[in-house]
Amino acid sequence: MGKFGFKVSFKDKSSKARIGKITTPHGVIQTPAFTPVGTQASVKSLTPRDLKETGTQMFFGNTYHLHLRPGEDVVEKFGGLGRFMGWDGPTITDSGGFQIFSLGDRLEEKNPERTKLIEISDNGVKFRSHLDGSLHYFTPEESIRIQHALGADLIIAFDECLSYFLTEEQVESVLPRIHNWEKRSLEYHEKHSKGNQFIYGVIQGAAFKDLRKISTDFICSLDFDGFAIGGVANAGESKKDIYSVVEWVTPELPEGKPRHLLGVGEVDDIFEIIERGIDTFDCVIPTRLGRTGFLFVDPKEGNIENRFRIDINKSIFAKDQGPVTKDCGCYVCQNFTRGYLNHLFRSRELLAYRLASYHNIYFINNLVEKIRDAILNGEFKKMKREWLGGRI
Amino acid sequence: MGKFGFKVSFKDKSSKARIGKITTPHGVIQTPAFTPVGTQASVKSLTPRDLKETGTQMFFGNTYHLHLRPGEDVVEKFGGLGRFMGWDGPTITDSGGFQIFSLGDRLEEKNPERTKLIEISDNGVKFRSHLDGSLHYFTPEESIRIQHALGADLIIAFDECLSYFLTEEQVESVLPRIHNWEKRSLEYHEKHSKGNQFIYGVIQGAAFKDLRKISTDFICSLDFDGFAIGGVANAGESKKDIYSVVEWVTPELPEGKPRHLLGVGEVDDIFEIIERGIDTFDCVIPTRLGRTGFLFVDPKEGNIENRFRIDINKSIFAKDQGPVTKDCGCYVCQNFTRGYLNHLFRSRELLAYRLASYHNIYFINNLVEKIRDAILNGEFKKMKREWLGGRI
Repeated sequence: MGKFGFKVSFKDKSSKARIGKITTPHGVIQTPAFTPVGTQASVKSLTPRDLKETGTQMFFGNTYHLHLRPGEDVVEKFGGLGRFMGWDGPTITDSGGFQIFSLGDRLEEKNPERTKLIEISDNGVKFRSHLDGSLHYFTPEESIRIQHALGADLIIAFDECLSYFLTEEQVESVLPRIHNWEKRSLEYHEKHSKGNQFIYGVIQGAAFKDLRKISTDFICSLDFDGFAIGGVANAGESKKDIYSVVEWVTPELPEGKPRHLLGVGEVDDIFEIIERGIDTFDCVIPTRLGRTGFLFVDPKEGNIENRFRIDINKSIFAKDQGPVTKDCGCYVCQNFTRGYLNHLFRSRELLAYRLASYHNIYFINNLVEKIRDAILNGEFKKMKREWLGGRI
Repeated sequence: MGKFGFKVSFKDKSSKARIGKITTPHGVIQTPAFTPVGTQASVKSLTPRDLKETGTQMFFGNTYHLHLRPGEDVVEKFGGLGRFMGWDGPTITDSGGFQIFSLGDRLEEKNPERTKLIEISDNGVKFRSHLDGSLHYFTPEESIRIQHALGADLIIAFDECLSYFLTEEQVESVLPRIHNWEKRSLEYHEKHSKGNQFIYGVIQGAAFKDLRKISTDFICSLDFDGFAIGGVANAGESKKDIYSVVEWVTPELPEGKPRHLLGVGEVDDIFEIIERGIDTFDCVIPTRLGRTGFLFVDPKEGNIENRFRIDINKSIFAKDQGPVTKDCGCYVCQNFTRGYLNHLFRSRELLAYRLASYHNIYFINNLVEKIRDAILNGEFKKMKREWLGGRI
């Protein structure tokens, strides 16, 4: 029997931001917290030791990918996701829903005959693997069964990822099916859980206020351990849309349960979503940007295009003997120069991607830590102004 | 003024193996020692901290590559090769000769008109960059000038890399030019060195005993700080050829100066070359093999094809919960399973190449450390028998 708990210890007076602590069988997460994503049981190029050093508190794995490779049976035999990858801290997996739909869409685009590759029924969804085209079938029960085998501390109810381009009527018509899938997820979980995993319900409803309200009411009526807000990072929605959704939903959520925002986390987003009451969020941005040479910097060192990052590939950095960003305490900034990183990227050395991922994850974790401090000191709004200025 | 020194502290009674210590301005190298290669100022995917942890004593950089990118002027401005890459230990650079000839050959093969891309005269060699086809001209003086700018502790005289397929007459005819280039290298070095770099002469002569003798005599007549044996790892020569060359040359070298073997270092080679009196050697094998999934193991765990490595890509390892190799104290073997590494390689995760390089370099450094101990305990031959068995 593991233990799970969440406690809000401090609330910001000037916003909905809050300080809390999620307790899991594998340790405590100080919130607000960023969660880097390691799709295939690895945060691109980083070891668990690196994750610790960068201040990472929780690891996010993708059920869709891990089911296809190496398979949940393998991960289970190795003692679960954390043990499999050598990470002893808290872990979370998603339901597979997002990948089924987003990768399915991509496969359909590539398919000359435009065959429908995803078949949805009320019972579940049939889809093809993006790896080998093999057929798979996920139901809510199957998603939870897999997540039980993967063994993450936190798991997520199975839902459908809705395109941002659906009309309100279309979203309204599928919402009951999504809610039913989540209810079935919870029922399966309650029946089969060994008590050491905790399940989050997901609130959907696209960018429609009324539908988000309906979804929030329904999902909150079920006995989930926490809540996630989904369907805000599909592609197409503006940052304003994302912030609006969060703003509609969080006041309706119970105070005493943790709130995760799925797939959001650029520098400016982080301030906006924490301000609106989000406790945890996951995002591939720090690693994905890092691998192309975009490195996070203090806004004083950014440029007009983007105050929060530099493109280290640019030739102006070739002779720059400074660190990626001043006052950064990370291993990369303490030991390497912009010039050396520019050289590694130009030379396509594997070390380039590694150092970039490391710095970016450290930077975000460190930023969120500073935000926690600012909230506690009543200086959250001030810090937000200093970072975002008049940008938003 | 840096200091340089070499001292043999112990000689094996049953072979030419010896224990020694090379002192450089950036620290001491216990010999025999393996030196991993970091062509572009980075040992593939590893940080200087990793190099330290894997027991690496000296870093080997390639002058040809560093001249083309980022350029020796940049490296010099950053404080030299070590400072540029964040490595505070001893460094060595080669002369550029080997790459000019081996990469030039490859470019010529790809070139449909088979234009001669390398033009050699008595003065030097004109060649095209493998990066952008730009023209460059290396003379002995230019190679040493570049190596002075790169600033490694140990540098190497400029020579010509001879094809293994040349006849004895052909090799004999070019040997005087090579010797002259090395003499000019030394003269330029003596005139321009700041006294903190030390130069090795290279012994050539292909696989011809008489020519190796002539080369050894000539190079030893010059006041080099140490000696390298070159032209044994071109492609085509058998392991027996390599060992023969070492066996002919080392007895003719002065006892009190260090001996480096260029480009050799498979597990069995290591025993054979140390037995024949080599002090240091560099090799890309551990990292190159590692990146394709070949991981070094104790011979008890190897297989019939190769007792010293496994191919972690093979499906038999997918559910293997053991470490890469038993009794290995490296970070990889202490924290990860064969099953996880198999998953990383199958998933082409960047972490795969990193963990493989780390383990392989640790394994070789650790092997050489054990060999040093065995020599000191009078058990070198016994250890060699245990590792190589009746294989050679």
